[in-house]
Amino acid sequence: MHVHLGNALAEASAIGVPRSDLEALDERVAAAAARIEAGRERSEHGYAALNLPKNTETGPIEAAVDAIRPAETLVTIGIGGSALGAATITSALDGDGDTRFLDNVDPAQTRTLLADLDLSTTAVNVVSRSGTTAETLANFLVVRDALTDAGVDWTDRTIVTTGQSGPLRTLSERHDLPVLEVPTGVPGRFSALSAVGLVAAAFEGLDLDAILEGGQTAAESLSDSLFESPAYAYGTTMYALEERGASIAAMMPYAEVLEPFAEWFSQLWAESLGKDGRGQTPARALGVTDQHSQLQLYRAGPTDKVVTLVRPRERLSVPIPETELDALSYLGGRDLRTLMDAEFEATEASLRKAGLPTIRIEIDSLDAEGIGELLYTMEAACIMAGELADVETFTQPAVEWGKETARSLLRGEQTLDETGDLVVAADPEPDDGDPG
Amino acid sequence: MHVHLGNALAEASAIGVPRSDLEALDERVAAAAARIEAGRERSEHGYAALNLPKNTETGPIEAAVDAIRPAETLVTIGIGGSALGAATITSALDGDGDTRFLDNVDPAQTRTLLADLDLSTTAVNVVSRSGTTAETLANFLVVRDALTDAGVDWTDRTIVTTGQSGPLRTLSERHDLPVLEVPTGVPGRFSALSAVGLVAAAFEGLDLDAILEGGQTAAESLSDSLFESPAYAYGTTMYALEERGASIAAMMPYAEVLEPFAEWFSQLWAESLGKDGRGQTPARALGVTDQHSQLQLYRAGPTDKVVTLVRPRERLSVPIPETELDALSYLGGRDLRTLMDAEFEATEASLRKAGLPTIRIEIDSLDAEGIGELLYTMEAACIMAGELADVETFTQPAVEWGKETARSLLRGEQTLDETGDLVVAADPEPDDGDPG
Repeated sequence: MHVHLGNALAEASAIGVPRSDLEALDERVAAAAARIEAGRERSEHGYAALNLPKNTETGPIEAAVDAIRPAETLVTIGIGGSALGAATITSALDGDGDTRFLDNVDPAQTRTLLADLDLSTTAVNVVSRSGTTAETLANFLVVRDALTDAGVDWTDRTIVTTGQSGPLRTLSERHDLPVLEVPTGVPGRFSALSAVGLVAAAFEGLDLDAILEGGQTAAESLSDSLFESPAYAYGTTMYALEERGASIAAMMPYAEVLEPFAEWFSQLWAESLGKDGRGQTPARALGVTDQHSQLQLYRAGPTDKVVTLVRPRERLSVPIPETELDALSYLGGRDLRTLMDAEFEATEASLRKAGLPTIRIEIDSLDAEGIGELLYTMEAACIMAGELADVETFTQPAVEWGKETARSLLRGEQTLDETGDLVVAADPEPDDGDPG
Repeated sequence: MHVHLGNALAEASAIGVPRSDLEALDERVAAAAARIEAGRERSEHGYAALNLPKNTETGPIEAAVDAIRPAETLVTIGIGGSALGAATITSALDGDGDTRFLDNVDPAQTRTLLADLDLSTTAVNVVSRSGTTAETLANFLVVRDALTDAGVDWTDRTIVTTGQSGPLRTLSERHDLPVLEVPTGVPGRFSALSAVGLVAAAFEGLDLDAILEGGQTAAESLSDSLFESPAYAYGTTMYALEERGASIAAMMPYAEVLEPFAEWFSQLWAESLGKDGRGQTPARALGVTDQHSQLQLYRAGPTDKVVTLVRPRERLSVPIPETELDALSYLGGRDLRTLMDAEFEATEASLRKAGLPTIRIEIDSLDAEGIGELLYTMEAACIMAGELADVETFTQPAVEWGKETARSLLRGEQTLDETGDLVVAADPEPDDGDPG
């Protein structure tokens, strides 16, 4: 894996980082790296995530998946970090078997999914550390009922992935369900390389050990200098760019199957670093598609972004046939992968020409090792950025108020105050007040 | 349709807009509205988009779709505005038939799609105004070849949607293909309510006239005051918020099927308004899922955003079964839609409490009229924001350099200059230079 920083430096962009600043930061990186290593050794909350590749046992994961066979479809019911890691891995890698995700409480989505499934061959993996996540549990209750209505014994078809206690743990004990552990001390968004991220991968027959080996390779490349560690190079440069005005972190993989990776990154970055009035806002993009959507803004809008361009060095070959249309003759006989790589390089160059900082991340190929390495690298980068910014990387206190309010509203214990809203209606109704 | 502005005002947020500022802006809105009306009357470039609902003839669209029957799958080959409108409409509405999109040049995506299709019952709609878009034409050449290899006469199964001249126009004439017009004077990102956005909808049997009627309803609600027009209320408030520091426009629909709408909005907003060193950066989010991903940042990060919350007023009912688990008893007997709406309201309230401006958009329901109205409203809002910001809303000059560079690279006419890149490699290679 390679992290190319050249286009994030001061010679490339007005908000780029002077080399001398990076060199000066390297002392703080060394101190932060020591803090991280100490946290890992003591398996402290959050830092424990960086030990996952070594500590994750794949045997119980494979056994749980075997227990719900011969199911042909696995629905992962979870939300946020309980779904995104698994979705990222199964999308990026080419497995067998049908895996789906129920990660919202939109009744239309749940209804559509249920209508689309053959329930007689469907199993579920319900994922919630606390065992109380409202969205996840509500969906689980609905799907469990549907399985029962379809004549399926849901206890033969349910894996539970949860913490050491809570309602889901109780349920698994009462019904003797296969249960996997959400690792202690690992926040959901850092749990991709544990059972949380790997059950769906196992169901698809993917090589869990190779994924974890990729993570371990990344773990071994951590060092006390940003100039020797891709993860710390990325995290430090992103931190330095934010300090210089890059308040937006666009993540733009050039591989369709990495779109969920961009979403996973968005959660990792936003929820870990969005604190104390700071934190870059992730913007998900997809190359080359979003060249036709976001590139105009990136090049001609405010210089307040860094764009991370991700690509695999190896791609499938799909030759472009020769054509009778003269204007297109330059395409004929080429290959889609050549076109995609040309667009990658042209976009990178065009952003540099526009003075916007970019960072290029290349993985050798989109295989199990490559994905494990990529996910671990981003997690370690995020932790480094959090150390340098001096925020509490592993908590998410600001979402609690909303969760409690939603629960109160649902219980009918609370109603929201009148906010004096100003409404402009195409079809004004009396109870919406005066649009003026 | 209702646009609720109360939480975007100064009493709700430090970067909110004082009511007096909105009142003062209303004079400029009147002038801009007059400019827009004049542009519509003369069908000027761009402004012509606002006449689409009336000017779009659905007969030729239906006829073109009939001509490629009995195909059971329609692949739209297009990129950016040539795909996003169609994807938004078919995702939002519940049609029959199988529609797919090929909107990237990732060889793995193209290969996977081809492997997944029954080519004997597949048709394509190739969409490019110029008829020269490299990504679209390359994919078309590949798919056309695959159809031929599968023994299908591609000329029986191809709709062309293009401008009045160019290679695709030539092709359609040579092979007598059904051809639809990309309307003159309408940029791709404003073309959802034309053949560009409606062919896939017609293939799914959706009610094109109802979609256009919804657009027309929105057209009729334009006025010379922001206080009387939802579209201009939204566009003006977004403009005023950008002036006050909301450099990020998060678009967060609370409906899974509106995820492509958030992408469509992102293109519309970024490519139209990202100019002259200004323009909000769109961030796509999805309620409730991204509460578990982005909400921490929105609440506790920088106050540099406005979050647009979109929801339908009507939802399907999916009851949540009663449960034996005590801790979850507050869920049992409720409904997924009640949960989703409680989360919507709690999130809105929690953002207000955190001092971040939000705008709530409500459509009556996710039906053909509602979607037509929503798309038109956002287009008109964008045009108003562009008038107030005094940018060239309808051009995208900054993407041209990259396109030409990609073409030159592909033709081998050009190589990129050495950028003096700084590379940090886990497995350093000699040709990547010194990471120090």
